[in-house]
Amino acid sequence: MDFSTQLSAAKQASKHLGLLTPKQKNDILKAMAQALADSTDKILFHNSIDIEAAKQSKISPALLDRLTLTKERIKDMVDSIEKLILLPDPIGQEVEKLKPQEENLSVKKIRVPLGVIAIIYEARPNVSVDAASLCLKSGNAVVLKGGSEAIESNRVLVQIIYEAGIKAGLPEGAICFIDSIDRSAVNELLALDKFIDLIIPRGSHDLVTFIKKNSLIPVLSHGSGLCHLYIDKSCDLDLAIKIAVNAKCQRPGVCNAIETLLVHKDIADKFLPIICNEYLKRGVIIKGDEQVRHTVANSKIQEAVEEDWAAEYHDLVISIKVVDSLEEAIDHINKYGSQHTDAIVTNDKVAAEIFVAEVDSAAVMVNVSTRLHDGSVFGLGSEIGISTQKLHARGAMGIQELTTTKYIVYGNGNVRK
Amino acid sequence: MDFSTQLSAAKQASKHLGLLTPKQKNDILKAMAQALADSTDKILFHNSIDIEAAKQSKISPALLDRLTLTKERIKDMVDSIEKLILLPDPIGQEVEKLKPQEENLSVKKIRVPLGVIAIIYEARPNVSVDAASLCLKSGNAVVLKGGSEAIESNRVLVQIIYEAGIKAGLPEGAICFIDSIDRSAVNELLALDKFIDLIIPRGSHDLVTFIKKNSLIPVLSHGSGLCHLYIDKSCDLDLAIKIAVNAKCQRPGVCNAIETLLVHKDIADKFLPIICNEYLKRGVIIKGDEQVRHTVANSKIQEAVEEDWAAEYHDLVISIKVVDSLEEAIDHINKYGSQHTDAIVTNDKVAAEIFVAEVDSAAVMVNVSTRLHDGSVFGLGSEIGISTQKLHARGAMGIQELTTTKYIVYGNGNVRK
Repeated sequence: MDFSTQLSAAKQASKHLGLLTPKQKNDILKAMAQALADSTDKILFHNSIDIEAAKQSKISPALLDRLTLTKERIKDMVDSIEKLILLPDPIGQEVEKLKPQEENLSVKKIRVPLGVIAIIYEARPNVSVDAASLCLKSGNAVVLKGGSEAIESNRVLVQIIYEAGIKAGLPEGAICFIDSIDRSAVNELLALDKFIDLIIPRGSHDLVTFIKKNSLIPVLSHGSGLCHLYIDKSCDLDLAIKIAVNAKCQRPGVCNAIETLLVHKDIADKFLPIICNEYLKRGVIIKGDEQVRHTVANSKIQEAVEEDWAAEYHDLVISIKVVDSLEEAIDHINKYGSQHTDAIVTNDKVAAEIFVAEVDSAAVMVNVSTRLHDGSVFGLGSEIGISTQKLHARGAMGIQELTTTKYIVYGNGNVRK
Repeated sequence: MDFSTQLSAAKQASKHLGLLTPKQKNDILKAMAQALADSTDKILFHNSIDIEAAKQSKISPALLDRLTLTKERIKDMVDSIEKLILLPDPIGQEVEKLKPQEENLSVKKIRVPLGVIAIIYEARPNVSVDAASLCLKSGNAVVLKGGSEAIESNRVLVQIIYEAGIKAGLPEGAICFIDSIDRSAVNELLALDKFIDLIIPRGSHDLVTFIKKNSLIPVLSHGSGLCHLYIDKSCDLDLAIKIAVNAKCQRPGVCNAIETLLVHKDIADKFLPIICNEYLKRGVIIKGDEQVRHTVANSKIQEAVEEDWAAEYHDLVISIKVVDSLEEAIDHINKYGSQHTDAIVTNDKVAAEIFVAEVDSAAVMVNVSTRLHDGSVFGLGSEIGISTQKLHARGAMGIQELTTTKYIVYGNGNVRK
């Protein structure tokens, strides 16, 4: 199949999108949200076709859960769009105040759209709606390539928002749906670099690596996470337990769940028996260093070896280490972590400040579960992913990360001397 | 030679640099500026060794000029540092105002250093000082790999600023000079990706491409330029001539000089004979389309062919085209340009606004020579280069572009529901 006609139209549409006013974009978003709300039954019907096929092909329960839409999940999509409408429009914002050398020269650095953004994703159909609405709010055309298991759901969702959008003033071609279950469609997209300004892969590590290696298009990747929680000597024990349980158990398979728990030696005697009990109750496999096993003395606690400190379990498994100091905790995190999300539980303001300053991660948290590193929680509306790279975007990515900048210079015959 | 010890020290130093206060960094910068001013004779002596060697190896006059230091050029380096001192410190700045979903949650997105930045450059010794001071102001350690032709000059410059810096509180290893004239040194640096967070190559297209292909380290490249000047039908003729001459002739070999001049048909009769005369007087080779050759009728004007619209001459050569409309000019620029710097000369405010909105380049200018796209002119202090990529940095890059961000989250036991 040849997608170049579709992508060329997206490129054309992107020129118009960049010139829409905030009100025009919000009116289109409102129409999309309304159309989704009005089409709940239709969406559920098409989703049921995907679910039926998925059951027959025996996909994992986790994947089946991600694929499944409900009335509540459709309402969540609508709510996400409504939150996005309320956010300030990023386009045209002045990014940096500049004082040029010459007095009769005006230099502004303003935020502009990137152009055409392609999202390659799996399973969750809500990504179609989140990505399309985030790209629209930030003035970009979007190319959507979802997973084959969600093809019916994605197709109907895009059809609904596209048709409602067009009636409300969306430029033709601004949402480009790659209607293919063929894996080679990704390769075809990668070759069309002249039409695409950015690719955001959301999927397996293999998918991301494949895309980075096989395309000239810049890539913003959603990173995996080796996140830590450090329990400082001065802390509220109940709060520490609550956060340690949530950060590991609430949804262990995701990137912002913790893999390693670090505990200050002065609180180990009090904290470790309770948390280990809480974890074991919830079926968590614990790998402890010598001090943990000595302190808790439960035969269910396995020995943590060097590889455990570098392991991303993404499952109900945790490694636990006792540290002598705040500095040892920080060094451990900076050595083994993936610069994603790391948190401290402490009542000591100075310790919190040192932790926040010295841990080199996309998000550093105090007395908060790492699971809160999320665009929606942070107030970004829905998110397009969480980046662990340092260039362009770091951490939860919202509409600002889908933009670039442009210098606009006005003068009156100014020349270089 | 093994640079890993040096780079490991730079990585260590970067941790301390990120924690320095604005005053501490400015005190170090002051000491560096003073030491440079005090060592003018010493610098000139070492530079003369490079110049002598360069003359014997018969390098081009342009390269010799770039290599040569004078009292004035040394004073320019000192002035650049002093300007940098006056700029607001980027580190710790709040980048985006966030309103998290939960009221008892504080989420800030603040600016932090990247870590260790390697600059690979050629000829101009002032880059050693500019890069080191920009990286220091932005809290980064710097790795400097200059060209072999400037080795004596670079070595003495770095020695002077490093020693003065250390006395004023610069962390040991924060400025890492790769003292090698061996080309393989670049390959060795590229392999040390665990110590380097960003590479900025400033040099030939081949050098940049080589680095991008052969390293896992993120690259910010200084792009080449195919810049345009468009003369609108409604404009001040004298101002148009002045800008067209400056944008082509003031320094034709650089990235922000123009390669193509577009002229509205309604002003072609008046403008073209004058500008062609001005160009020919200055030895510029003119390649004109049919209308240009018909209007000016000078046998010295060569025929412009399709390839000319895509040519980066970087020399005293210009292609000139007559266009029917503002829209045709914009389409031509977006089709053939390199998204670097493009300018319009016009008295029509609406035309200026359309041009600024629709030309998709790093800098878009009105009634200004494209040569003014420069970090120093824009008030960024010295610049680390001009980017034509859209991600992370676009256009003139100053200290802000040498930073990343970090989410800092404070709560009171907040967990994910």
